[in-house]
Amino acid sequence: MNRTDHNGALRIEDEGRQVELVGWVSKKRNFGAMNFIDLRDRYGIVQLVFDEGFNERLKDVRQEYVLNVKGTVRERKDKNPNLLTGDIEIIVEDFDVINPAKVTPLIIADETDALEDTRMKYRYLDLRRPIMQEKLMMRHAITKSMRDFLDHHDFVEIETPALGRSTPEGARDFLVPSRMKPGSFYALPQSPQLYKQLLMIAGFERYYQFARCFRDEDLRADRQTDFTQVDIETSFLDENQILSMTEEMLKKLMKDVKGIDIPTPFLRMSWEDAMNEYGIDKPDNRFGMKLQDLSEIFKNTEFVPFRKALDEGGVIKGIVVEDFAPSNKEIKKLTADAKKNGASGLVVLKMQDGKLNGSAVKSLSEKEIDDLISTLNLTDGSSVLIVSDEWLKACTALGALRNDMGAAKGLKKKDEFSFLWVVDFPMFEWSETENRWVSQHHPFTMPKREDIPLLDTDPGKVKTNAYDCVLNGYELGGGSMRIYENDLQEKIFEILGLSEEQIRNKFGFFIDAFQYGTPPHGGLAFGLDRIAMILSGSDSLRDIIAFPKNAAGRDPMSDAPNTVDDIQLDELDLAVNVSADQRKQLKAIEEGKVLITLPDGKETEVSLQEIADWKAAQV
Amino acid sequence: MNRTDHNGALRIEDEGRQVELVGWVSKKRNFGAMNFIDLRDRYGIVQLVFDEGFNERLKDVRQEYVLNVKGTVRERKDKNPNLLTGDIEIIVEDFDVINPAKVTPLIIADETDALEDTRMKYRYLDLRRPIMQEKLMMRHAITKSMRDFLDHHDFVEIETPALGRSTPEGARDFLVPSRMKPGSFYALPQSPQLYKQLLMIAGFERYYQFARCFRDEDLRADRQTDFTQVDIETSFLDENQILSMTEEMLKKLMKDVKGIDIPTPFLRMSWEDAMNEYGIDKPDNRFGMKLQDLSEIFKNTEFVPFRKALDEGGVIKGIVVEDFAPSNKEIKKLTADAKKNGASGLVVLKMQDGKLNGSAVKSLSEKEIDDLISTLNLTDGSSVLIVSDEWLKACTALGALRNDMGAAKGLKKKDEFSFLWVVDFPMFEWSETENRWVSQHHPFTMPKREDIPLLDTDPGKVKTNAYDCVLNGYELGGGSMRIYENDLQEKIFEILGLSEEQIRNKFGFFIDAFQYGTPPHGGLAFGLDRIAMILSGSDSLRDIIAFPKNAAGRDPMSDAPNTVDDIQLDELDLAVNVSADQRKQLKAIEEGKVLITLPDGKETEVSLQEIADWKAAQV
Repeated sequence: MNRTDHNGALRIEDEGRQVELVGWVSKKRNFGAMNFIDLRDRYGIVQLVFDEGFNERLKDVRQEYVLNVKGTVRERKDKNPNLLTGDIEIIVEDFDVINPAKVTPLIIADETDALEDTRMKYRYLDLRRPIMQEKLMMRHAITKSMRDFLDHHDFVEIETPALGRSTPEGARDFLVPSRMKPGSFYALPQSPQLYKQLLMIAGFERYYQFARCFRDEDLRADRQTDFTQVDIETSFLDENQILSMTEEMLKKLMKDVKGIDIPTPFLRMSWEDAMNEYGIDKPDNRFGMKLQDLSEIFKNTEFVPFRKALDEGGVIKGIVVEDFAPSNKEIKKLTADAKKNGASGLVVLKMQDGKLNGSAVKSLSEKEIDDLISTLNLTDGSSVLIVSDEWLKACTALGALRNDMGAAKGLKKKDEFSFLWVVDFPMFEWSETENRWVSQHHPFTMPKREDIPLLDTDPGKVKTNAYDCVLNGYELGGGSMRIYENDLQEKIFEILGLSEEQIRNKFGFFIDAFQYGTPPHGGLAFGLDRIAMILSGSDSLRDIIAFPKNAAGRDPMSDAPNTVDDIQLDELDLAVNVSADQRKQLKAIEEGKVLITLPDGKETEVSLQEIADWKAAQV
Repeated sequence: MNRTDHNGALRIEDEGRQVELVGWVSKKRNFGAMNFIDLRDRYGIVQLVFDEGFNERLKDVRQEYVLNVKGTVRERKDKNPNLLTGDIEIIVEDFDVINPAKVTPLIIADETDALEDTRMKYRYLDLRRPIMQEKLMMRHAITKSMRDFLDHHDFVEIETPALGRSTPEGARDFLVPSRMKPGSFYALPQSPQLYKQLLMIAGFERYYQFARCFRDEDLRADRQTDFTQVDIETSFLDENQILSMTEEMLKKLMKDVKGIDIPTPFLRMSWEDAMNEYGIDKPDNRFGMKLQDLSEIFKNTEFVPFRKALDEGGVIKGIVVEDFAPSNKEIKKLTADAKKNGASGLVVLKMQDGKLNGSAVKSLSEKEIDDLISTLNLTDGSSVLIVSDEWLKACTALGALRNDMGAAKGLKKKDEFSFLWVVDFPMFEWSETENRWVSQHHPFTMPKREDIPLLDTDPGKVKTNAYDCVLNGYELGGGSMRIYENDLQEKIFEILGLSEEQIRNKFGFFIDAFQYGTPPHGGLAFGLDRIAMILSGSDSLRDIIAFPKNAAGRDPMSDAPNTVDDIQLDELDLAVNVSADQRKQLKAIEEGKVLITLPDGKETEVSLQEIADWKAAQV
């Protein structure tokens, strides 16, 4: 076997060449006495022509057979403009079946109607579909583009531990029982955050890693048990330098992978503006429909919901949806959605024949209606959706409606790529449940220099040097400048209400490290899977992961996770499927007792020794 | 802060330039009224000169303080040829302390006498030592060189699952309990072997991955809980094409990273020759001292150990060590080593004053002695070490001695790099314990075409298309061509004595995949950590891993593994530290009984109901 060419690479210039090809039978058909086969490899498809002398040998050849073919390239009479190789075909002189194939449970073509479960069970066939190969090859092109950029800019790739320490912070850890220290566990990393900061303390200055990260959370289309993070950290650069360099990386990425020039610098939007105008911290600004503040218009309103919101210090905000006249049923659905997103209600007003309609109209004054129409420039056929509530609640609820309406009206164009930064996130959020300030990002995030005095007076107003990179309404990644001064760090812990002991337990060795000459540093991390999903125009993460898990965390192909042998559990001193009752029983056994339930339903402990004595006496 | 240059990059050409530098205080000393500081960053060290005006402000500045410095480059009077920046120094005009540092528990310099445990506990300081930074940067250079080669040759990098299925084959799995399916476990991958073969079935043709792999085995200097594998698989290439391409990759690697041209093609040595001449399947051929077969010389011997070996079908083999006259104590040690490596004994003969000495000499004939001297060309001062045993045992024991002697005599030069392939490994080994043939590599390894008839008649003689890449006595990596035909695969399973059911349990979905058009394929995998260790001249894997584990599998810095909260165990329905006895007890209780030990030591079961009744009656 001595393959001379890739099938998809042959062109009219190759006419007359003797070639030897390999690949899979994509299609087989006959036309008169002749047989035609489309032979597929990773590079594409080429048409083979067999004269009738081959008929007998071709009889058994089916789709997905692996062939080795010798022949000559010739110009095609009936050219196929849809195929890159459509100008030519191969006159076959000889061929071999390298390997036969059973009938495949799904058709190997870009379009498929196979169920998700079938696709996952026979993933090796699903991945044989050219569209899936292209997606995974694009994923590789993405990593290569980013790596090349980072290598060129002096970043060092450093692998951080896959088996680390479990910390109670953040999402749920995946645990790995230790055999050498039974009863103890490693945790799979949720992110290399601590390690990358330690690498800055170690003086590496510029670090990156394509790091596999793990979170044991419930899964859905855009979440998997594990994901790949493009993890970056730098020393001695300020926020602006980091953002600019990152923009260059993404500009190169879009050029390399999509052939698109994106403008830099990206729009930088404060978190407050993002919430105010888009009602979300990851605005999709491919379309307008911005949130507008209507509080001024209704400052004297007697409409009860509006009045209440304003009296309680809230706001009245709205979005205008053009060419949209929702039915009562649709209004009901919109209202339910608004409530689901935290609003106490929704007012929908429709502009028809130069007049505003809607159940709330009767409660509004003439002037309010006129002001609304003129301020929002309402024209016939458009509607306005209004929420009155606390600022954050009103923004969030309207932002969700805005996103839904944008999707419904086809305003989210897949071939448009709008990058922006959201910056100046708040340092703290007030936790009602814990009755204390908690970090919005993490406690090592640097507060903005000019806001440091506010730490003592009004922590809720303190903004940070944190930043999120947003593309088309998705958070691609984010990061922050980190605190590197001990005094400041201690003040933050104080505001978070952490005791010395809690600090030690939660952050112990990490805090120690900061005392030995820590450089100013900051960084960010991108979700590689999400980038690949968006750039490849996929709807699910499962399309850009070779062997993904389903929503139950299962791999239908290998049937992982599975039960394991007792000997494996013995080596780890583990017991599985232990209920709370059994756990209590285990504890009792450890103390030489057993828990029993008396006939009257009461639970009591009996010593094993006592039982043994009683039994012995019986004999 | 606006850094203009990297410290290590300044040269005489920069004289007169105004620069702004950042970095760590590596050394501080005063000379008369002047102060000198060596300022270190990732790129190197530069000397700063402070005039006496700075004395007061410099008073508190200690080693590892982080400084920001403005000054002018000037030529040095007392040049330092050991420093790349040794021709110049910086006259400081102003400086700031960016961050102070406590006294470090280890000195930040290439040479260290800090204990391994201290180095690991303060790993971020250990990594600040320039020599450690260089090692990790070399590791990155290695990955970059290999990636660039693979990208250039059309390989697609594809990530395979980190959470897979546990299989009873091979080494011990690290397990990850599943929360969504309690009682079940994922396994961390020991290698992506099955996945990469599935990717060939999926038609990717050329795959690679820098894959994190996990084996829960006891640790030592050259083993960690996890390691990084450069994993490669190809379709439609034969063994020779794969080896040639790999050689080109390694040639580029050596050029890129070490600046060395290594000759290709590499020596290809059959497994049999490797064992015969070097007594090991990963020969270090930087030095000679080859194993020589002495069986012919001693074919009529009456020396009992030799006679016995030959009569039992074994061999007599020896190595000549020049300039080596071991004392009786040394001979005792050598003999113990030989026995530890499986030999039944060792004969040591020393050539002195033209005569052979040694306790065995008196049992050898004049002719045997003369033949030995002339065949081995023995000269004064050299010794010959002889083992008589079964072929494999004799080779293995002598091979180990050869390696020890090579090291002891300084023949393993660190700056010499000798690559070779060991090929034609046996397909099967006979397992005495299981009384059946077992795979030497894995059951999917392709037997050599010409040996296929031997499968029926003499399986032990069947050689495979498997290959190991050896550098300086280390196995850098290895792989094989894989079986892609169902008939052949079934025959192999038959020889291995596997039933249909066992095949299904062990290899299930993988076997199914092979029926849908599998291309001929093969590949290999390299141990990245080991490559980095050898090329950086390190003695331990811990030197080329940023945050390694110690021999107890612990990270002394973060103190992983650690105990976890009960709530985490509850979510997984797990109980820890459960002994085999407790497990039995739990099982009994589940069945409504309890196991007790009677006073006479007998074990018996008592029903919980019975105990409850007895207890109730007591009240």
